[in-house]
Amino acid sequence: MTKKKAVVLLSGGLDSATVLAMVTNQGYDVYALSFEYGQRHEHETLAAQRNAESFELVEHAIVKLDLSAFSGSALINEISVPKANTVEEIGKDIPVTYVPARNTIFLSFALGWAESRNVTDIFLGVNALDYSGYPDCRPEYINAFQKLANLATKKGVTSSESFKIHAPLIEMTKAEIIKTGIGLGVNYAHTTSCYDPNDLGEACGHCDACLLRLKGFKENGLEDPATYQ
Amino acid sequence: MTKKKAVVLLSGGLDSATVLAMVTNQGYDVYALSFEYGQRHEHETLAAQRNAESFELVEHAIVKLDLSAFSGSALINEISVPKANTVEEIGKDIPVTYVPARNTIFLSFALGWAESRNVTDIFLGVNALDYSGYPDCRPEYINAFQKLANLATKKGVTSSESFKIHAPLIEMTKAEIIKTGIGLGVNYAHTTSCYDPNDLGEACGHCDACLLRLKGFKENGLEDPATYQ
Repeated sequence: MTKKKAVVLLSGGLDSATVLAMVTNQGYDVYALSFEYGQRHEHETLAAQRNAESFELVEHAIVKLDLSAFSGSALINEISVPKANTVEEIGKDIPVTYVPARNTIFLSFALGWAESRNVTDIFLGVNALDYSGYPDCRPEYINAFQKLANLATKKGVTSSESFKIHAPLIEMTKAEIIKTGIGLGVNYAHTTSCYDPNDLGEACGHCDACLLRLKGFKENGLEDPATYQ
Repeated sequence: MTKKKAVVLLSGGLDSATVLAMVTNQGYDVYALSFEYGQRHEHETLAAQRNAESFELVEHAIVKLDLSAFSGSALINEISVPKANTVEEIGKDIPVTYVPARNTIFLSFALGWAESRNVTDIFLGVNALDYSGYPDCRPEYINAFQKLANLATKKGVTSSESFKIHAPLIEMTKAEIIKTGIGLGVNYAHTTSCYDPNDLGEACGHCDACLLRLKGFKENGLEDPATYQ
């Protein structure tokens, strides 16, 4: 019997590091895919590399995607990242850290990359509970992409296999995600979540991503091993 | 009243040149988007530039997308392009010129680019009649992408406008497309369709794209102004 194969989107963050551990633990041969998309800080890619090196992967590709022509996002443009002191203060609207169509672009590329490697299982670490309100992190979005994937591709249309988009964290809280990862031996010191780190890669402690992460560790009675400013 | 705005995917081929003429003729302010995706020949991009220069566009962006890590396509890898002498000889299966998830990647990028320009109408020149059998050229695919677009984006989720993916050629024959374009003054000498041109950019005359194009001009009683080897 051939071994199960999976493509895993790996960002360098806490969520995708957990997904990577879950998928390798389930016995998949893993092809990890990271993007350099003009995000303001390169610490994400370095973190993704450190995560990838913790596992025996078939392949880890880092693909450059130039999204600099997109405007209006604090992750790729010179716009201030909102700061707060507690999770309760995080705004309810879609924040300025939203990058237009980012997950759709990442998943589309992953789809073609997976098809050309004969892989139909694609995993990503989106989360619809403790998250920032991004539309492309919701279950209905993931379902719509999966449907599209099987209409868009040669493999989806002509073979008996179909593409499956797996979002195993989608209904988990940040605390549950961290607990799962700790159980699988994830070294969260190798991950970076901050939207606004300094030049040394140290986290700000006050953006949405930092606040959600800190709360998740605290609820597990653990200290976040990330370095804060 | 603000003028209608549209993003048009512009490949350098006959179909997208026709779409560009149709959309400008309908009074849209046009943002054209082309991709250099590692296709074996660069003549496509040059043709797209010539087409773009024929119209007064708000913007024409040429974006590099590195798809070289994809394998198995005759358009980006060292695989022979199939040749024939008549349209009837063209195979019925999805051909080796299929690029995995190409239209999904292009449309995803266009979606983010459009959103960051406050544009919700996206046009592309796919065609489901005189085409090569690609899965991502069918109406059900376009409908699925449109649905996804409105789940994936801030604009789709929070505003009263919704994204529309327009494929005005989808039910037209190649002959009808050419007739429409001629009526709108398209200079088809500025377009290239061949999957396997020589170094001078001259068309082979025998790949699927050349055969369909030649038949389309012939049915209009016209000579194709493209240069053949």
